[in-house]
Amino acid sequence: MEKLSRLLMQMEFIKEIDKLKYIQRKTKLFNSERHENDAEHSWHLAMMVMVLSEYSNAPVDVLKVLKMVLIHDIVEIDAGDTFLYDTTKNHTNTDEELIAAHRIFGILPEEQAKDFLEIWTEFENGETSDAKFAKAIDRLEPILQNISNQGGTWTEYNVPFEVVYEKIDKIKDGSGFLWDHVDELIEEFRKKV
Amino acid sequence: MEKLSRLLMQMEFIKEIDKLKYIQRKTKLFNSERHENDAEHSWHLAMMVMVLSEYSNAPVDVLKVLKMVLIHDIVEIDAGDTFLYDTTKNHTNTDEELIAAHRIFGILPEEQAKDFLEIWTEFENGETSDAKFAKAIDRLEPILQNISNQGGTWTEYNVPFEVVYEKIDKIKDGSGFLWDHVDELIEEFRKKV
Repeated sequence: MEKLSRLLMQMEFIKEIDKLKYIQRKTKLFNSERHENDAEHSWHLAMMVMVLSEYSNAPVDVLKVLKMVLIHDIVEIDAGDTFLYDTTKNHTNTDEELIAAHRIFGILPEEQAKDFLEIWTEFENGETSDAKFAKAIDRLEPILQNISNQGGTWTEYNVPFEVVYEKIDKIKDGSGFLWDHVDELIEEFRKKV
Repeated sequence: MEKLSRLLMQMEFIKEIDKLKYIQRKTKLFNSERHENDAEHSWHLAMMVMVLSEYSNAPVDVLKVLKMVLIHDIVEIDAGDTFLYDTTKNHTNTDEELIAAHRIFGILPEEQAKDFLEIWTEFENGETSDAKFAKAIDRLEPILQNISNQGGTWTEYNVPFEVVYEKIDKIKDGSGFLWDHVDELIEEFRKKV
């Protein structure tokens, strides 16, 4: 009976997170006019972690990083997507997101809820090697998308390139090698516009 | 230079798999009229693996199972979604899917391509504990969705329940406990229709 009530909590969580598929991001798919949603984004980051983890500055626990990117945006079910270049809102660790994390992860059995909350908090704090690399990948995907879309959100929201560089600087903390590549891609792109 | 050409192959793969977001499944999101796409589906399976792995009949390597569910449908970029209850087509391991696996995973550097192909093949063969559990989760998600959607694809395509049971029987091989729960859910649902 206890095992069943545990499963029912887990099933409830599995249904609840289906809502992530409705959270639309500002960025669009590659070479596309179609906005990406948070579930698609999270899947793509997980694939990027599988493929690119060799470039992390420090060795990473791939399982932990995968968990981070898979769950990192679930709080947006309640808090909504925060646009990286939104100048009126602090991008990370808002009270709203913390409340959302407690509500949504809290649907799970206690020790699983605690585990998910810890992984999410570690990601948000961005201090460990795992979190730094996860954050680098989270920054990388929309850059590649924007470049494929003639500037994408940078163009659409008139974001000056100094601001772009300021916001994506964190990639360096996760991977100097990926940062160098991104830097070149953006320079190349700027020459064309 | 060699490191850069390696990265460029990986970046090419990362762009290519964006197409998974356009592959529409027959099943719809929970309590919804909106079809699910393969990227969303893969993300949801990964979350279910994180939450439900304790119920596997045999201990599993969670990292391996996560990789399996994250990549299992990538072949559908070329081969298209095969509907579980399609009576004209064998659901798994079609020649078309094998060719797709070689083309798409083959974009990656050689040893990564080999690794992805092995993981995908292990999933398709469904013989190891990891593959059995991954397949159970792959079967489980659309059942939950169909029940939330008044029968979903079962109703829409007039699939007799004997056929449903035949197709989802594999859940037992991955998790007897999850199978028992699914069995109850379906019985409960059948009483209502």
